[in-house]
Amino acid sequence: MNIEERIQAAMERLFDEVISPSTPPTLRAAMGHALFPGGARIRPQLYMAVAMVSGEDFPALTDAGAVALELMHCASLVHDDMPAFDNANMRRGKTTVHTEFSEPIALLTGDALIVMAYQVLLSQSTKKPLSHDHALRALEMMNLLSQGVGVPHGIVAGQAWECESKVDLWKYQRAKTGALFTASTCMGAVAAGANPAPWMELGESLGDAYQIADDIRDVIGHVELIGKPVGQDAELGRPSAAQVLGLEGANTEFKRLIDQAAKSVPDCSGRDILRAMIFKESERLVPQREYKNYLAMSKKQAARSEHAL
Amino acid sequence: MNIEERIQAAMERLFDEVISPSTPPTLRAAMGHALFPGGARIRPQLYMAVAMVSGEDFPALTDAGAVALELMHCASLVHDDMPAFDNANMRRGKTTVHTEFSEPIALLTGDALIVMAYQVLLSQSTKKPLSHDHALRALEMMNLLSQGVGVPHGIVAGQAWECESKVDLWKYQRAKTGALFTASTCMGAVAAGANPAPWMELGESLGDAYQIADDIRDVIGHVELIGKPVGQDAELGRPSAAQVLGLEGANTEFKRLIDQAAKSVPDCSGRDILRAMIFKESERLVPQREYKNYLAMSKKQAARSEHAL
Repeated sequence: MNIEERIQAAMERLFDEVISPSTPPTLRAAMGHALFPGGARIRPQLYMAVAMVSGEDFPALTDAGAVALELMHCASLVHDDMPAFDNANMRRGKTTVHTEFSEPIALLTGDALIVMAYQVLLSQSTKKPLSHDHALRALEMMNLLSQGVGVPHGIVAGQAWECESKVDLWKYQRAKTGALFTASTCMGAVAAGANPAPWMELGESLGDAYQIADDIRDVIGHVELIGKPVGQDAELGRPSAAQVLGLEGANTEFKRLIDQAAKSVPDCSGRDILRAMIFKESERLVPQREYKNYLAMSKKQAARSEHAL
Repeated sequence: MNIEERIQAAMERLFDEVISPSTPPTLRAAMGHALFPGGARIRPQLYMAVAMVSGEDFPALTDAGAVALELMHCASLVHDDMPAFDNANMRRGKTTVHTEFSEPIALLTGDALIVMAYQVLLSQSTKKPLSHDHALRALEMMNLLSQGVGVPHGIVAGQAWECESKVDLWKYQRAKTGALFTASTCMGAVAAGANPAPWMELGESLGDAYQIADDIRDVIGHVELIGKPVGQDAELGRPSAAQVLGLEGANTEFKRLIDQAAKSVPDCSGRDILRAMIFKESERLVPQREYKNYLAMSKKQAARSEHAL
């Protein structure tokens, strides 16, 4: 079973374990809609890879951590898509939760998924007997997860920066995307009983890279490729690295961050595999051929407009 | 320091501890608006009373549990007041969060408060050294809290029953209100290292009583008394005990539940004090003089209408 399959199996198993048949049926359906089929499941994959190279020895808790991260990510997407924020009808090529069900149900779905993230971790750590070491790991994993989501620096804080008139772009992006990436790498280490500190830089660099990739794709992408509307940053007047650095500057910065992420991987037996994963993921995030085509096309267009004047 | 003062002090201390100056200012203000000044703080009071009579010995964790319960309660109020649900402009005699700030901020405030409930418990339980017993208590408290809020039987599930066409009134009310009361009494016992099972009935009975009291006040109350609009259940077509049982039937059931709650208090040194607290609270919930005045007035009105025909 590879990492993707392991995550998928854990998602399905823990979903069924927490959601009993007595959950209100519409809420249950909406939660399933938000979780399955998933997107790239990039956070739990990153987390799982770190846990594995760190020598994980408590697979049930490792699985729970992966699911908890994905639940938090999906919760933020459900709320972010609502009319109060992006008012998006499509996500991952299908209808968003509030479009498919209703606004009240979308609101509750996000809330229920946040709580469920803790429930899956607690379901493994309140089973007896539990060693003191494992209890402390579970507590520390929940602590890291909360930091990645809540105030002052988590994704909720990141979204709240969108409501401020004065925003520091890097602080905003670090919170909105980076925080959960940092939680992913650090939680992976803790799940395996390892020290999380050496894994922080990997999470930070990948989080920054991912956010810039999102900004780049928002400019060059098309709906079919990314499964949601493009051009939203400009339309919503939202801070974007592609606007600040220009498209070419953003792509250069993206590649620099990927290199930095690869270099940051601490010395461990799976170091080369992890680095290869990072470079493969970077190509998925910003396909360089697609980027170059867009660039050539927009330069040609600019030249034509100049000629016409 | 009495219970109310202890809770207030803990709320302020842990709020400042979790919310650093780097939290986005509007979100920070909105979270403060949702929490201070509070309502009756009935859940943390109930929890604290149980913890104290059960012989609490880890005051920092006891305090954190009280704050966590109140944060979850306030989070549910913020989301429940939003246009997608009640569309309420007033709460506790002041503007609701989405009215005072904005819908996006209200959405994020609820999310941040839910995560913060775990953060305050984790802030006490990731401080080293932590005994194994205390680690297990913290995990069990978070487990009980999650059950009171999440799926399948917590307050989020209760709100989701409002979106179903077929609803079992008792199941709905048990989830919407009772679940967090049961979490309160059980968490109180666990905070003190005691067995939560004997405290479950107290939480259930009080939760049921509180919900019926809410339905009764929705009929007899006036805005000044309860700080939010009245007649909402009928207006929103929401299931209500006062509709099903009639006003007099609901009041009889309310008094029966209060008696049941008082009787359920397990044998302990503070039993009489706890019982006295319950009866005092019941009078605050449904002032019997107010109830009788309303009843006499509506009977007089009914007689007049009959006479006029």
